[in-house]
Amino acid sequence: MKRISGQIAILTDFGLNDNYNGVMEAVIRKINPEAKITYITGNSKPFNLIAGAYLLYTSYKYFPKNTIFLVVIDPGVGTNRRPLIIKTKNYVFIGPDNGVLYPAIASEKIIKIIEIQNEKLYLAKTISNTFHGRDIFSVAAALISIGVEPDIFGNQLRYEDLTKLDFTYKSLGNEICGKILYVDHFGNIATSIPKEVLLNNFKYGQNVEIKVNNSKYKCRFVKTFGYGMENELLIYFNGYFMVEIGINKGSAKDKLNVREGDEICLEGYTQGDFSHSI
Amino acid sequence: MKRISGQIAILTDFGLNDNYNGVMEAVIRKINPEAKITYITGNSKPFNLIAGAYLLYTSYKYFPKNTIFLVVIDPGVGTNRRPLIIKTKNYVFIGPDNGVLYPAIASEKIIKIIEIQNEKLYLAKTISNTFHGRDIFSVAAALISIGVEPDIFGNQLRYEDLTKLDFTYKSLGNEICGKILYVDHFGNIATSIPKEVLLNNFKYGQNVEIKVNNSKYKCRFVKTFGYGMENELLIYFNGYFMVEIGINKGSAKDKLNVREGDEICLEGYTQGDFSHSI
Amino acid sequence: MKRISGQIAILTDFGLNDNYNGVMEAVIRKINPEAKITYITGNSKPFNLIAGAYLLYTSYKYFPKNTIFLVVIDPGVGTNRRPLIIKTKNYVFIGPDNGVLYPAIASEKIIKIIEIQNEKLYLAKTISNTFHGRDIFSVAAALISIGVEPDIFGNQLRYEDLTKLDFTYKSLGNEICGKILYVDHFGNIATSIPKEVLLNNFKYGQNVEIKVNNSKYKCRFVKTFGYGMENELLIYFNGYFMVEIGINKGSAKDKLNVREGDEICLEGYTQGDFSHSI
Repeated sequence: MKRISGQIAILTDFGLNDNYNGVMEAVIRKINPEAKITYITGNSKPFNLIAGAYLLYTSYKYFPKNTIFLVVIDPGVGTNRRPLIIKTKNYVFIGPDNGVLYPAIASEKIIKIIEIQNEKLYLAKTISNTFHGRDIFSVAAALISIGVEPDIFGNQLRYEDLTKLDFTYKSLGNEICGKILYVDHFGNIATSIPKEVLLNNFKYGQNVEIKVNNSKYKCRFVKTFGYGMENELLIYFNGYFMVEIGINKGSAKDKLNVREGDEICLEGYTQGDFSHSI
Repeated sequence: MKRISGQIAILTDFGLNDNYNGVMEAVIRKINPEAKITYITGNSKPFNLIAGAYLLYTSYKYFPKNTIFLVVIDPGVGTNRRPLIIKTKNYVFIGPDNGVLYPAIASEKIIKIIEIQNEKLYLAKTISNTFHGRDIFSVAAALISIGVEPDIFGNQLRYEDLTKLDFTYKSLGNEICGKILYVDHFGNIATSIPKEVLLNNFKYGQNVEIKVNNSKYKCRFVKTFGYGMENELLIYFNGYFMVEIGINKGSAKDKLNVREGDEICLEGYTQGDFSHSI
Repeated sequence: MKRISGQIAILTDFGLNDNYNGVMEAVIRKINPEAKITYITGNSKPFNLIAGAYLLYTSYKYFPKNTIFLVVIDPGVGTNRRPLIIKTKNYVFIGPDNGVLYPAIASEKIIKIIEIQNEKLYLAKTISNTFHGRDIFSVAAALISIGVEPDIFGNQLRYEDLTKLDFTYKSLGNEICGKILYVDHFGNIATSIPKEVLLNNFKYGQNVEIKVNNSKYKCRFVKTFGYGMENELLIYFNGYFMVEIGINKGSAKDKLNVREGDEICLEGYTQGDFSHSI
């Protein structure tokens, strides 16, 4: 086993008050004291797989090649959901088979998918039912960071066997419909609709109608939220090149009252044919 | 002084908004730029010695040998409470003599207890009255991480001289009584009663009566909270093998309205002899 | 380009729930995997330049020589505010020209001020309008950490050209007036009045009158808040040797209802000539 100075990126919903993230780091450092550990965040929305998947999907490409992603958003811990190691051309993804890894790995060239089954590679003979982040996933990340091969952890799975979680959108006539993927702490609402789709269908400055949860809202397509007037709903590309709804120095979330997973549709319209709800 | 790449684990109640944790790290890195710093948490409950002691006690064994624990939960800063360096067989613990280190070091083989008195090893000639985490404790941790001997910091104390903080429990007839040690951000309630005691007295599936703050509650002894019904109080071992009260996808804290330090008693009972309060 | 193990200190208002801080770290580690990254905080008050400037000003001197400060409190992102690299005798400061760097660099010997203009040193050919922390500032910090010279990034600016943000105070007869610079998470209120000014004008134990937002309050000048009675307003030097208002185990902020930027005046008085408001 060669000691390499592995980059490990952690994403959890453990929060920052308790010692769960710290203990995961401890387990890693006991195996690889030289690991370079970065948090995507240790405070992802609890049990929220779509939000976690979005944070991973929008982050991972910025990390160095060979970074190991250790993702513990795991509401099914202790049940029979499978723990995974997924080796792609550029990265390694470790986490539960509940969809949280799916959008990221679906964008990568997959080399191998392993189900972690080898109990000799657990933290201890007796492990907890509640903290597999420490007992299984951190150990796997640390061992891989020092050169252990994924095959030792268990048998291969096929891509088709994985639990899916898709960031999809579709065009229906004049409408483009997608999903709300993430509401950030400013109240900006990111959707599954990519930049190009908006650019192909709308022009800067054009009014766009949003339909979500049986309500309709009018917003304006702008280059960045700095162009918005007070309280004006705006639509633009966010820093991850996804279509986002926001308000300049305000919270679009408070206005639209939405959450991750809600369906959202966009449609261009001309002034006059629109009755603004709320 | 040999430069070694020391592992330092930080536990503070400074919170994550201000720059207090960052400045402690700065002081460490000025002395040992190669230090490997991990946070147990930088956001422990303010002034709460039991909560801090629990987070340290349940974390420290997962860290690599020779890790230096820098613990600054220090409501008595600026008064005459003693700053300590405690060297054990496997670790070094640095922090105030207010009990926060006690449960951890009481489980370790103690080599030496030093009271930090040598003002030449403070950050500056004039130090603050309010930030000994920066001015005394971080300097000590950093110096020890590069090989400075604890003896240089001051005189030895005896174990008996330390301020105690015990995580105890007792059996009284059919009752087992302990203390509430920690309420985590999910609302799970960890107690001072260890796994074995529960296993010796109760069977999986059995109903258990909880008495706390003059109220009684019924709960069920299960392997993990995944087995609980909606709103059902459960009792199980947590990830640190301590007895914990929780609710599946809910908050036991909201139901029991308890906090760290409260006494809690458990008693087995058979259906029919129980009048459920609230 | 020599690979050096650079110290980078990050200060942002991105918050700890989203992946913005993590992605900035990713960009740094892709360029310099060995960078030593410390957070002053990743959770500074959103869009609050005075608070951010205070956290930087009070922190930076504790960091090792040659630390690179990467400061992204940037409400003007995407507009024409200038991105800066400021090399001083001891440090490098990187961030927007909106005043947030000003109090720190005004205390240092400035070697060179560069406006980042070279688009070849951006993260990509097309960059976002909303996330220059990732696309411009992190890249600059990482490149400088591996030895790239600031001159390559753009042309020099003069100190006089910078956007100013001054931490000033003045004496007017018996009054000393300054600004509120920071309210920390305990509710302590730090001002722009330095330690010496208070010491020259008041004696320990003396009563001091505070005037702020058209209200007057009485407080007592003490060595540390541990000397305060319940609910008593105290005035003392904080850990950064600035004059601070606090309450022992309480929140001065809740009592005075102030925020960063408010003017505050102090005046000594003798019992009897004071009518306490509220």
